[in-house]
Amino acid sequence: MPNPTAAMLVIGDEILSGRTRDANMHFLANEFTRHGVDLQEVRIVSDKRAAIVAALNALRATYDVVVTSGGIGPTHDDITADCVAEAFGVGIDVRDDARALLAAHYDRQGMEFNTARMRMARIPAGATLIDNPVSIAPGFTIGNVHVMAGVPAVFQAMVASVLPTITGGAPLLSQSLRILRGEGEIAGPLGALAQEFDDLQFGSYPFQKDGVFGANVVIRGHDAGRLDTAMTRLAEMFG
Amino acid sequence: MPNPTAAMLVIGDEILSGRTRDANMHFLANEFTRHGVDLQEVRIVSDKRAAIVAALNALRATYDVVVTSGGIGPTHDDITADCVAEAFGVGIDVRDDARALLAAHYDRQGMEFNTARMRMARIPAGATLIDNPVSIAPGFTIGNVHVMAGVPAVFQAMVASVLPTITGGAPLLSQSLRILRGEGEIAGPLGALAQEFDDLQFGSYPFQKDGVFGANVVIRGHDAGRLDTAMTRLAEMFG
Repeated sequence: MPNPTAAMLVIGDEILSGRTRDANMHFLANEFTRHGVDLQEVRIVSDKRAAIVAALNALRATYDVVVTSGGIGPTHDDITADCVAEAFGVGIDVRDDARALLAAHYDRQGMEFNTARMRMARIPAGATLIDNPVSIAPGFTIGNVHVMAGVPAVFQAMVASVLPTITGGAPLLSQSLRILRGEGEIAGPLGALAQEFDDLQFGSYPFQKDGVFGANVVIRGHDAGRLDTAMTRLAEMFG
Repeated sequence: MPNPTAAMLVIGDEILSGRTRDANMHFLANEFTRHGVDLQEVRIVSDKRAAIVAALNALRATYDVVVTSGGIGPTHDDITADCVAEAFGVGIDVRDDARALLAAHYDRQGMEFNTARMRMARIPAGATLIDNPVSIAPGFTIGNVHVMAGVPAVFQAMVASVLPTITGGAPLLSQSLRILRGEGEIAGPLGALAQEFDDLQFGSYPFQKDGVFGANVVIRGHDAGRLDTAMTRLAEMFG
C-alpha cells in the first residue's frame, strides 16, 4: 500500500510577521514520518478569509490528509472554523455536544461561559469533534481535513488523538552519513549511487560552521535491508 | 504607497520529513517586517519538479516579490534553477560570469572545478546574479523571483544583498500587551476595539505554560501615533 500523502495549513499572522517561530510544523513532520504518512506540502497563510479558503480547497483536493493549525479560539481573528465551513459549502452553528463540553469546563473552573467562549462551540455541519484534553475547546474533522488549535500543547494532544485514525504505510526509515568534503566533490558519485538505488531517496544537505564544511547525506526508504546496502556503499565511497 | 506583498517558497525534503527545522523563513519574516514588505504566504514543497514549478508560478502571479530558498547546490537533488527556468519558459545554461566566479574561487582554494560544481554556474536566461560572499556560488533574480541558497549563512547574506532593491513601504510597527486572562474574557472588548481602530490589525495569541495562561495581544500598523492611542485604550481595559 502506498503511504498516504498529507499537507499542513498553518494559519497565523504571527508567524508571517516573524513574531513567533512555528513549532507545530516541525512536530507534525516528525510524527507523520514516524507513522508512514508522507508530508508533501506546507502552506502558511495569514488570518484572511479568502486566503484560508483558497489554500484549504487546493490542499484537500490534492492530498489524502490535511491538517490545519491555528485560528480556532474565541477572539475576532479566529476565523478558521468559518473558513472551513465555507470551503466545504456547509453551514456552521453552535453544536450541542461542543457547547456541553465547554459549559462543564467553565463551570468546573468557576469561569463565565460568555458569548466569546461560545464561539468555540461553533462547528461546521457534518464534522466530528477532536478531543482537547488540555483546554477542552475541541478541534474537528470534516472530510479529509483535521482542524486543530495553534497552541503547541493543544496541537500536539490533538495530533495524538487523530494519528491512529490515519492509516499510515510503512514508516519512512532514514540513515545519514556526515561527510567532511564539499558537496561538489561528492555530487558525481552520489548521483550515480542514487540512480542505481532508484527505490530510495538520496538527499544531500550542506553545512558550513566555524570553518568546517561538508554535507549530511541522508538516504530514505521503506526497506531496511536496501537502506543498509546503500549506506554501506556510500560509506565505502566517502568513509 | 502600499507595502509590497511577498511570498516565500522553501524547497526541501529535509524540512517536510522533520529532519531539519527551517530557520530561513523566520529570518526572512523578521527582515521583511522591519523593511515594510508584507510577507503574506509561505509554501514548503519537496524536491519534486512539478511541485516546485506549480508553486512558483502560483506565487509569482499573486505577489509582488517571491523569495525561494534551497536546491541550488551541486548535487543531483538541486533542481531549483531548472525549475525556475521551466516556470519562466526560458532556457538555462552555464553562464560565463558565474563560471568565472566559481573558477576563481576553486582555484584560490586549490579545489577541483569539476562537472558537479559547474552545475552551480547554470543560470536561467535573463537572470541577474545575487552575490554570495560566503561560498561564492551565486543566487539569481529573474522577474520578481529571487532564488537563494538554503544554507542559513548564505541565505542571510543573499537577503542582505537583495533587500535594498525591494522598495519597501513604511515598516510594520507593533506593540504587544501580555494579559493574564483567558482569551474568552478579553475577546468581546478586544473585538470592539479592533472594529473601532480598523486601520490597525489586532492579533490575540494565547499561551499556556506551567499552569499560567493568558494571551499576548499584538497591535500592528504603520502609524506610531495610532498604535500608541490604541495600546493606551487596550491597557486601560486590561492593564
